Amino acid sequence: MNEKRRIYNFAAGPSMLPQAVLESAAKELVSYGTSGMSVMEMSHRSACFENILQTAKQDLRDLMRIPESYDILFLQGGGTLQFSMIPINLFRGSGKADYVITGAWAEKAAAEAVKFGDIRVAASSKDRNYAYIPRLSAEDFRRDADYVYITLNNTIYGTRYPYIPDTGDIPLVCDWSSGILSEELDVTKFGLIFAGAQKNIGPAGLTIVIARRDLIGRAPENTPIYLDYKIHAANKSLYNTPPAFSIYMAGEVVKYLKKNGGVSANERRNREKAEKLYAYIDGSELYSAPAEYEDRSLMNIVFVTGDAALDKKFVAEAGEEGLAELGGHRSVGGMRASVYNAMPIEGVDALIGFMRRFETENKKRAVK
Amino acid sequence: MNEKRRIYNFAAGPSMLPQAVLESAAKELVSYGTSGMSVMEMSHRSACFENILQTAKQDLRDLMRIPESYDILFLQGGGTLQFSMIPINLFRGSGKADYVITGAWAEKAAAEAVKFGDIRVAASSKDRNYAYIPRLSAEDFRRDADYVYITLNNTIYGTRYPYIPDTGDIPLVCDWSSGILSEELDVTKFGLIFAGAQKNIGPAGLTIVIARRDLIGRAPENTPIYLDYKIHAANKSLYNTPPAFSIYMAGEVVKYLKKNGGVSANERRNREKAEKLYAYIDGSELYSAPAEYEDRSLMNIVFVTGDAALDKKFVAEAGEEGLAELGGHRSVGGMRASVYNAMPIEGVDALIGFMRRFETENKKRAVK
Repeated sequence: MNEKRRIYNFAAGPSMLPQAVLESAAKELVSYGTSGMSVMEMSHRSACFENILQTAKQDLRDLMRIPESYDILFLQGGGTLQFSMIPINLFRGSGKADYVITGAWAEKAAAEAVKFGDIRVAASSKDRNYAYIPRLSAEDFRRDADYVYITLNNTIYGTRYPYIPDTGDIPLVCDWSSGILSEELDVTKFGLIFAGAQKNIGPAGLTIVIARRDLIGRAPENTPIYLDYKIHAANKSLYNTPPAFSIYMAGEVVKYLKKNGGVSANERRNREKAEKLYAYIDGSELYSAPAEYEDRSLMNIVFVTGDAALDKKFVAEAGEEGLAELGGHRSVGGMRASVYNAMPIEGVDALIGFMRRFETENKKRAVK
Repeated sequence: MNEKRRIYNFAAGPSMLPQAVLESAAKELVSYGTSGMSVMEMSHRSACFENILQTAKQDLRDLMRIPESYDILFLQGGGTLQFSMIPINLFRGSGKADYVITGAWAEKAAAEAVKFGDIRVAASSKDRNYAYIPRLSAEDFRRDADYVYITLNNTIYGTRYPYIPDTGDIPLVCDWSSGILSEELDVTKFGLIFAGAQKNIGPAGLTIVIARRDLIGRAPENTPIYLDYKIHAANKSLYNTPPAFSIYMAGEVVKYLKKNGGVSANERRNREKAEKLYAYIDGSELYSAPAEYEDRSLMNIVFVTGDAALDKKFVAEAGEEGLAELGGHRSVGGMRASVYNAMPIEGVDALIGFMRRFETENKKRAVK
C-alpha cells in the first residue's frame, strides 16, 4: 500500500477526521499563523491560544444553537470521568437519580453513580441484548430524582433514541459521545450533555460538557478540585492547562462543519450514508441488522451474517481492501460500520461494494 | 515576520518541542506510516496504537532507568488531578502526609490534600518568597506519615532541590512537571513521580505518573474510578480512551532524546544553557536572580532589573525581537526564561545578546 494512501476507517472511536482539516493542521503544525510556534507549544495563557479556545466555543455554540444559559466546558478524562462528575455535581436535593440502561456505557455510568447516591434503573433493554430503546414518559421516573441519565446513541448495539424522553422538571443528562454534531438536537431539552471528542469532533483527550448554568456549583466541599464543574466554569476551562491541541483540532473541525452547511447539512449527509447502508443490508440475503428498525443508529451500523466464522472472514477481507476496523465490539461480535461525520459517502459506497462481492462469494455457506 | 519563521519561546509551559519532532509529526499527520490514517484517528485498541504506547513507555523506562518495580501510567487531568489522586491513592495507614511548601504549586497540592487526610507542612520557604529550598532530613517528617510531598523544581520562583530529602521508609512523592528528563534522577529514591507533559515531553493533555507498584491499589472503594491508579495500572493506561496523540508526541520526543545521547547528554546541554545565562546575569550591572545560588533552577531562570517598569519594557521589547513569553509569573513579576529540554543553546545566546543591548541602553535608569 502506498504510504500516504488514506483508508476508510470504520472504527468506533477514535475514528476519522475530515481530511481537509488534517491537511491544514499538518501545514501549520510547526508554526501556527504568525505565532512562530506550534499550537502544541503555545502558552495556554497567551492571547493567541485564548482566541483559539474562545472561537471553538463560540462556533460550537452557534452550530448547536446552545443558549447562553448553558456553559460549555473543555475538560479531560473522557466519558469515564463524566460518569463520576455527573453524580458528584448534579446531586443537590434527594441524592436520587434514575438511569436508563441501553447498553454497556449506560451500565458503566450507573455502576459509577452508585458510589455517590441512590441510583434506580428506570428501564433497561438488556432483555433483548440492547437491540432497542425503551419508550419512556415522565411517570417512569421518580418525581424527586435529581436527574435522569440516558445514552443517546449506543455504539456497541447500534441503537439511538428516536425521541427525547419527557422528564418533566427533572434535568435530563445525556451521553452524546457518539452523536454530537451528527444531527440536530434541541439542547434546551437537556440539563447536561457530554461527549468525548474522539468520534465526531476531534482527537481523544478532550471531553465537551454542555451544562445548564443553574446546575453548576453544587458539588460537595471535599470534591477533588478537577471534578468540580464550578472551577472550570469560573475559569473558562483554563483553571489548569487544558488539552490545548485537542481543543484546537476540535475548533478546526467545528469551523469546517460550519463552512459545509452546519449541522442540518451534516445530518442530511449522515442520514444518506446510514440509509444507504441499511437499505443494502435489508435487501441482502446474507446480512441483517439486529437493532430494532425505528431505533437504528445513524452512526454505528451493526450487522451480522448469522455465522460467526463468516463474520470474522468478512472483517479480515474488508481490512485487506482498505475498509478498516469493521469488527463488532468484542462483547457482541459481528460487524460494525461506524460512519461518523467525517466518513465520506464514498466510504459507504466502497463498503457496500465489498459487501456485495462478499455476499456473492459466500452466499451458499451462510444461514440468514 | 515570515509566517514560517520559528521564534524562541521561553514560556513556562506549554512550551517548545524539538523542531525535528514537530517536522516529522507534520509529515505523518495525515497518514501515519502504512496505517492509512492519522494517529489522531486510530482506535486506541488497534495494534498500531498499542505499539506506539508500549514503545513510548519502554523508551521512557530505558531513558530514566525506571525499574520494573515501578509502573508508568499515561493519564489525563494534569498536575491538578494528581493533587487529588495522590492523597486518595497513597493514604493507606495513618492518613497523614507531610508537605514541603516551596511555592504556589506545592501550596495548591497541600490545599487539595487537606480534603482527604491529615496534612502537615513539614517546612516552607514562604518566609523569603520561596527564593530557597529548605534543607531537610528524616527527623523533619512524622514517622507515621503515609508519604512526604515535594515539588522538585519550582517554575515561578526559579528554584530546584539540589538534593533529594532522606525520608527514611516514608515514600517520597514528587512533582517533576517542570524537570522530567532534564537531568539524571534516581527514581528509586521516590515512591511516586508525576509530571504534566507540557514542559519537557510533549503537548498538554498528558500526565505521566511513575509509581512504585506496591503503593498502587489502596484507594478507598468509593473513589471515582478514573482517580484510582489501580484501574489504569491493571489496564496498561487503556482502561478508557487515552490522550492518544499526546502519547504519540511524547513518544517521539523520548525517541529523539534517546537518539541524542539520552538524559545525561540532555543534562549537560541544560546545565550549559543555565550556567551561561546565570553567569551573564551575575556579571551584569542591571540584572539579578532572586533565587538562592545553590537552589537555582536549571529550567526556569528568574531574574529582575529591580525596576518593575523596566522589567515590563524588557519583556515587551524582547517579544518584538522574537524572544517570546519572557514575563515572570503574574504573582511575582520580573522576568522568567524557561529553558526546557527543547530550547536550543542558540535561544539562550540570542537572549543574552538582547539582554546585553538592553542593559547598555537602559543602564542609567536602573537601580540594581
